Amino acid sequence: MKAAFLTSVMRFEIRDIPLPDCPEDGIILKVKACGVCGSDLRRWREGPMLSSIPPIPGHEIAGEVIAIGKNITDYTIGERLAVAPDIHCGNCYYCEQGLYNLCDNLRLIGITPGYDGGFTEYMVLTGEILRNGIVHRVPPGLSDLQAALAEPASSVLAAHERVGTSLGDTVLVMGAGPIGCLHVIVAKARGARVLLSEPHAGRRQRGEVFGPDGIIDPSQQDVVAQVREMTDGRGVDIVICANPIAETQTQAVEVVRKRGRVVLFGGLPKDHPMTVLNANLIHYGEIQVVGSFSYHPIFHQRALDLIKQGVIPSDKLITHTFSLDQINEAFQTAAGGDALKVIITFETGAAS
Amino acid sequence: MKAAFLTSVMRFEIRDIPLPDCPEDGIILKVKACGVCGSDLRRWREGPMLSSIPPIPGHEIAGEVIAIGKNITDYTIGERLAVAPDIHCGNCYYCEQGLYNLCDNLRLIGITPGYDGGFTEYMVLTGEILRNGIVHRVPPGLSDLQAALAEPASSVLAAHERVGTSLGDTVLVMGAGPIGCLHVIVAKARGARVLLSEPHAGRRQRGEVFGPDGIIDPSQQDVVAQVREMTDGRGVDIVICANPIAETQTQAVEVVRKRGRVVLFGGLPKDHPMTVLNANLIHYGEIQVVGSFSYHPIFHQRALDLIKQGVIPSDKLITHTFSLDQINEAFQTAAGGDALKVIITFETGAAS
Amino acid sequence: MKAAFLTSVMRFEIRDIPLPDCPEDGIILKVKACGVCGSDLRRWREGPMLSSIPPIPGHEIAGEVIAIGKNITDYTIGERLAVAPDIHCGNCYYCEQGLYNLCDNLRLIGITPGYDGGFTEYMVLTGEILRNGIVHRVPPGLSDLQAALAEPASSVLAAHERVGTSLGDTVLVMGAGPIGCLHVIVAKARGARVLLSEPHAGRRQRGEVFGPDGIIDPSQQDVVAQVREMTDGRGVDIVICANPIAETQTQAVEVVRKRGRVVLFGGLPKDHPMTVLNANLIHYGEIQVVGSFSYHPIFHQRALDLIKQGVIPSDKLITHTFSLDQINEAFQTAAGGDALKVIITFETGAAS
Amino acid sequence: MKAAFLTSVMRFEIRDIPLPDCPEDGIILKVKACGVCGSDLRRWREGPMLSSIPPIPGHEIAGEVIAIGKNITDYTIGERLAVAPDIHCGNCYYCEQGLYNLCDNLRLIGITPGYDGGFTEYMVLTGEILRNGIVHRVPPGLSDLQAALAEPASSVLAAHERVGTSLGDTVLVMGAGPIGCLHVIVAKARGARVLLSEPHAGRRQRGEVFGPDGIIDPSQQDVVAQVREMTDGRGVDIVICANPIAETQTQAVEVVRKRGRVVLFGGLPKDHPMTVLNANLIHYGEIQVVGSFSYHPIFHQRALDLIKQGVIPSDKLITHTFSLDQINEAFQTAAGGDALKVIITFETGAAS
Ligand SMILES: NC(=O)c1ccc[n+]([C@@H]2O[C@H](COP(=O)([O-])OP(=O)(O)OC[C@H]3O[C@@H](n4cnc5c(N)ncnc54)[C@H](OP(=O)(O)O)[C@@H]3O)[C@@H](O)[C@H]2O)c1
Ligand SMILES: NC(=O)c1ccc[n+]([C@@H]2O[C@H](COP(=O)([O-])OP(=O)(O)OC[C@H]3O[C@@H](n4cnc5c(N)ncnc54)[C@H](OP(=O)(O)O)[C@@H]3O)[C@@H](O)[C@H]2O)c1
Ligand SMILES: NC(=O)c1ccc[n+]([C@@H]2O[C@H](COP(=O)([O-])OP(=O)(O)OC[C@H]3O[C@@H](n4cnc5c(N)ncnc54)[C@H](OP(=O)(O)O)[C@@H]3O)[C@@H](O)[C@H]2O)c1
Ligand SMILES: NC(=O)c1ccc[n+]([C@@H]2O[C@H](COP(=O)([O-])OP(=O)(O)OC[C@H]3O[C@@H](n4cnc5c(N)ncnc54)[C@H](OP(=O)(O)O)[C@@H]3O)[C@@H](O)[C@H]2O)c1
Ligand SMILES: [Zn+2]
Ligand SMILES: [Zn+2]
Ligand SMILES: [Zn+2]
Ligand SMILES: [Zn+2]
Repeated sequence: MKAAFLTSVMRFEIRDIPLPDCPEDGIILKVKACGVCGSDLRRWREGPMLSSIPPIPGHEIAGEVIAIGKNITDYTIGERLAVAPDIHCGNCYYCEQGLYNLCDNLRLIGITPGYDGGFTEYMVLTGEILRNGIVHRVPPGLSDLQAALAEPASSVLAAHERVGTSLGDTVLVMGAGPIGCLHVIVAKARGARVLLSEPHAGRRQRGEVFGPDGIIDPSQQDVVAQVREMTDGRGVDIVICANPIAETQTQAVEVVRKRGRVVLFGGLPKDHPMTVLNANLIHYGEIQVVGSFSYHPIFHQRALDLIKQGVIPSDKLITHTFSLDQINEAFQTAAGGDALKVIITFETGAAS
Repeated sequence: MKAAFLTSVMRFEIRDIPLPDCPEDGIILKVKACGVCGSDLRRWREGPMLSSIPPIPGHEIAGEVIAIGKNITDYTIGERLAVAPDIHCGNCYYCEQGLYNLCDNLRLIGITPGYDGGFTEYMVLTGEILRNGIVHRVPPGLSDLQAALAEPASSVLAAHERVGTSLGDTVLVMGAGPIGCLHVIVAKARGARVLLSEPHAGRRQRGEVFGPDGIIDPSQQDVVAQVREMTDGRGVDIVICANPIAETQTQAVEVVRKRGRVVLFGGLPKDHPMTVLNANLIHYGEIQVVGSFSYHPIFHQRALDLIKQGVIPSDKLITHTFSLDQINEAFQTAAGGDALKVIITFETGAAS
Repeated sequence: MKAAFLTSVMRFEIRDIPLPDCPEDGIILKVKACGVCGSDLRRWREGPMLSSIPPIPGHEIAGEVIAIGKNITDYTIGERLAVAPDIHCGNCYYCEQGLYNLCDNLRLIGITPGYDGGFTEYMVLTGEILRNGIVHRVPPGLSDLQAALAEPASSVLAAHERVGTSLGDTVLVMGAGPIGCLHVIVAKARGARVLLSEPHAGRRQRGEVFGPDGIIDPSQQDVVAQVREMTDGRGVDIVICANPIAETQTQAVEVVRKRGRVVLFGGLPKDHPMTVLNANLIHYGEIQVVGSFSYHPIFHQRALDLIKQGVIPSDKLITHTFSLDQINEAFQTAAGGDALKVIITFETGAAS
Repeated sequence: MKAAFLTSVMRFEIRDIPLPDCPEDGIILKVKACGVCGSDLRRWREGPMLSSIPPIPGHEIAGEVIAIGKNITDYTIGERLAVAPDIHCGNCYYCEQGLYNLCDNLRLIGITPGYDGGFTEYMVLTGEILRNGIVHRVPPGLSDLQAALAEPASSVLAAHERVGTSLGDTVLVMGAGPIGCLHVIVAKARGARVLLSEPHAGRRQRGEVFGPDGIIDPSQQDVVAQVREMTDGRGVDIVICANPIAETQTQAVEVVRKRGRVVLFGGLPKDHPMTVLNANLIHYGEIQVVGSFSYHPIFHQRALDLIKQGVIPSDKLITHTFSLDQINEAFQTAAGGDALKVIITFETGAAS
């Protein structure tokens, strides 16, 4: 079977490797679709870690069960599954509280060394993944592409649940990447009015499709002034920083109203994690700054449901698909900034 | 009558001025006790604003009604009142929502120019104060000193209500000033385990009286390491930054557990309002950083009730009292760092 | 000027009375539109209280300022206002907490004796109403009919805020009167899937316009069985009892899922206020049964905004309008059960 | 080994049965203490179900590991464990949400047929129990009696977390059984003022030990009138119905203030589950009636911690202990109404 290994900086190599054996408590998934995520791009730009086997990334996965281990009773051959990356330990303080995304021993498929991902024709879902990972059946009527999209949508759903975005709120989304666009969609579905800020012209155009009530170009416009003007001087109720730029976090505190909420949805570069915020705006304005990372498994199920209901319009979010052989082109396209969601799809030919 | 004017840096002058007239819709209060607050100390250190009439500070006020305007029906002569500084406008977006402490037009007795405070024998409570300020009757059995203490206690009560401090939480309070000590008291009354960190030895000793479950000296000990040790490595559930030092805010994010809450309770110096926080701890740990400033009037009533019930032990918090004539000494004592709450009291002689 | 007096059971009389004088701290409103509410119908069926002056009902009011008292500075002649019934006291325990709708001394325009309502050409908005009532400016672009609709919409908005209706929830609305239809609209705007149950065929048809995801006829179908079938056997997340029938409350507890929420939105007849609920479903299923009555003034402002934004489609809700002279016909129509919102409108002729 | 079988109405029989084998994925627990719960008493009064093997009840369990299966790595011989009854399935809608106590397939040790309980010298903790049950290590310093007490305390902790009992609240607890007394303790630990109502004189006396701020005898006093008097006419913020009497639920709605919360903590008899509540008080007063049943496993851990900290004073709650041989006497004592918590203890002799 073929799999894509990240062998050097910005370089995947397709290799032919033996089909894996099915473990007794696991299953073999024929991958049908696997999305390219921003964190995949980051790793692709940095290259694989030295002195390690080149990894197989990919964690926005949809596929079909083609083999089941002898101890497996919950799954049957032919079932279609959507798989998300998180595997929790089940034993730590956070797992006991059901805060699985904060697990002290969290491992991520397609990211954590030793947990190869979905840019491959076939992959093993181990017993550990089936027990403590995030695996849901694809509802009938949902395509493989749609099922793969559930993963990034899940984190966005979780963030809005956390801050309670609701009818009557005005939300500023900073960043119109695939994630920012999902924030526009979800905030609107919850009844909010949405402003979108994005420096890249192509992305602003893409973002417009999702119906934001106002668009800002932070490369040309004064974001703070613009937002004030669009909100009778008051500021927005909620800001979502859907990008990895510390400066947007600083701005967020300046454009949110008193008692407003700022969501740090994107991480900053590992070696520059510090952000500079106006503590007095937070203090005197009783602002809330809150982090949001990954999600409880129930949001993955909910994402599948909402894509099926058409609340999340997959066709407008998925702008490009490529075959596994074209994965380098796929990543280039995703990195180019003109695409939104880029997904690797697989022919439905026989196992090789 | 005598009143204390802040005439220059670290200098009050007692002047004899005419007794004010009672407005038709206001009352005259004979001040009985007025606390010295940290913000009073700050202004005392900075001195009065240039080119303005020297102000009369003081906003932790208890007194007795000695005259009422002809339109006043709610108050009677002889009643004892506790007065807090906030006056809201009643018309802005925040007032409409009942978020009076966030009023766009907030004025503060004893702080905002034109709103003289309680370091005086008699003061006018104008119609505006009676309508939109914070004035509550002193419950029977409460002394004037206790009634004055309700003001600082109110802000502490509001902060814990906001973050929901509760049974089973571990709370770190950074700073053992009068406010930090109130945080220890209130967090414990809500069922929390409390750690207290304070560099000043005298204050640590004072703080010990309120029964914290652990004490840290940040000038000698590594706060982060200490807190981890005291919490099985996990970090605390809630941190209260009860001081004006940005560094403690940075530390707070490092010692709080995932999904924990950090309260920015103290403002930073006006000209250095920026704070530096680890955005990735917030993002990946889904930490909440939240400001808390002043309070809804109901907390002032609740503070009076809790002082009366003995939940807030006023006798241990009020370490010094001075007469109005001794106000310079009072401020020196408060600034010295060995006192907790310092209160100016007034003889109950006849109006002069 | 003309006004409609409820003189006997199901009988209004139009009388010509003198134009009221404008109080110094009040204004005179020329009424432009005044909706017929379910509680108006109830009183109309019961007739006026004996031994009292026949009242002028009507509390869903929109109009124009035509005179202002000499102490009025906030309003100007020609301004258009929307007026809701609640007048709170400002002094009781609930008012202090900002829970104005729960005021111990609540009075209602058009309902409480002495507080005549909007079925009249001109009405006085007293100082008390301007200070402690619910009066908002009509946003430009909103018609009088739309402005009058804000009142019933407000209570519906408040109820969903209280139970946090959100994306992913399934809501059952019991009753497709004007209020039930508003619940369908608001629940959907917040992202919920909505089921609507209503025995009256004409109303079911009217309700269908608002896009419920399922419709039930409780006169023919087993509601509990139907809802279970429509929710994979689980029950709904939220039930809104938008009718005055105790039996629907009993059913609500049976069709809501564990940890679900039941909103008692309609009151029961005054002399039969008891409801019979399965306490064990509540206990073992940790169900929440919660009352919702009237609203905080901010929801009236929000309703105006949402009608303006088209989120609340006024044209589909307002099915009939009548002139003041036709008020008896208007009430008959409203009572007939084929209409949704019925509104009395006024020509814009000169004051008579 | 000896075990207590419920063989007929109000009759246990001690039988000698073979020591169970240790399953590969389970452990053998030597029971050290097992509390008598109200539901045990109910079953004892009703007798065992016909045509079934007489059960071994008991679900408030503390013991010591004396054997481990060959697949067990998490537990070691000699460890002390506290065991609570709930076993969730891990697969249903509620389990996915972490609402384990609402599991659609919940089984209860010592209650569900096939799941024998703790009134026995040795019991098997199966793999299912270890994976999906509630088993926590006993913190050092806690006695076996104290560890057994964690179970009933857990449900009480969960209830107050659910309604957010806090500083400033007044709580009415109806019933001064062991559970009602725990509610007094926990409400007070969270900062509330507590009123206790209980018809049985002996129980009122026992309850007094836990420091309620007011005591009511509902057999002699008008509860509604009394509570109004003790709350300035307003009613309490929270009512806990800690008994199985429908009438107290009806009263609860009458004595709670507007926006107050009523917790249905006790179930009603299976064949009389209907409760009669004043729907108009709920509707117009926006009261919340909420069920509370069992708890998330984290509350069991928290209960152990709080007993250890002395917040829950075990010595005052545990009024009687009996040996397994005296189990009939133990139940008679528990049923008598003069005891609070009655616990069966076991000598620490060798396995027989
Ligand atoms: N919380 C979670 O669980 C979670 C899950 C998935 C992703 N994320 C994070 O979410 C973020 C967005 O993901 P993505 O895939 O959409 O990334 P992306 O494609 O890189 O999108 C980020 C967008 O932000 C724009 N941007 C740059 N500077 C900006 C500014 N000052 N104001 C507004 N927008 C600005 C970028 O424009 P240019 O292209 O011109 O730079 C880009 O279009 C990433 O940081 C990612 O790590 C978080
Ligand atoms: N949110 C509100 O509504 C509200 C209301 C009132 C007050 N406040 C604020 O609350 C804060 C505390 O008030 P206060 O009257 O108690 O002030 P304070 O007397 O100045 O107390 C602050 C304490 O913090 C200590 N401290 C300094 N560096 C520290 C560190 N690194 N770690 C821990 N503690 C440290 C100080 O010690 P040294 O004496 O050695 O410097 C001092 O004892 C102030 O910032 C005030 O503005 C807020
Ligand atoms: N909470 C608040 O602040 C607030 C504000 C306004 C109104 N309300 C209340 O909201 C309720 C609805 O108001 P509305 O103006 O829409 O009243 P409405 O026109 O009387 O509508 C109630 C509807 O419920 C239907 N119904 C009767 N039995 C039913 C059943 N078993 N299942 C489902 N539906 C049933 C009625 O059908 P038929 O016509 O065939 O009887 C009617 O169409 C009233 O009780 C009102 O008092 C509350
Ligand atoms: N939610 C949960 O997870 C959970 C967990 C454990 C227990 N429970 C329930 O909690 C309830 C209390 O448990 P328990 O073990 O303490 O039971 P208990 O010993 O039977 O105590 C109930 C007490 O309520 C008293 N009572 C009777 N009528 C009353 C009235 N009108 N007003 C006030 N008190 C009245 C009883 O007095 P007399 O003795 O004179 O009748 C008795 O002392 C039970 O219903 C139990 O099922 C629930
Ligand atoms: Zn974990
Ligand atoms: Zn204001
Ligand atoms: Zn009131
Ligand atoms: Zn389950």
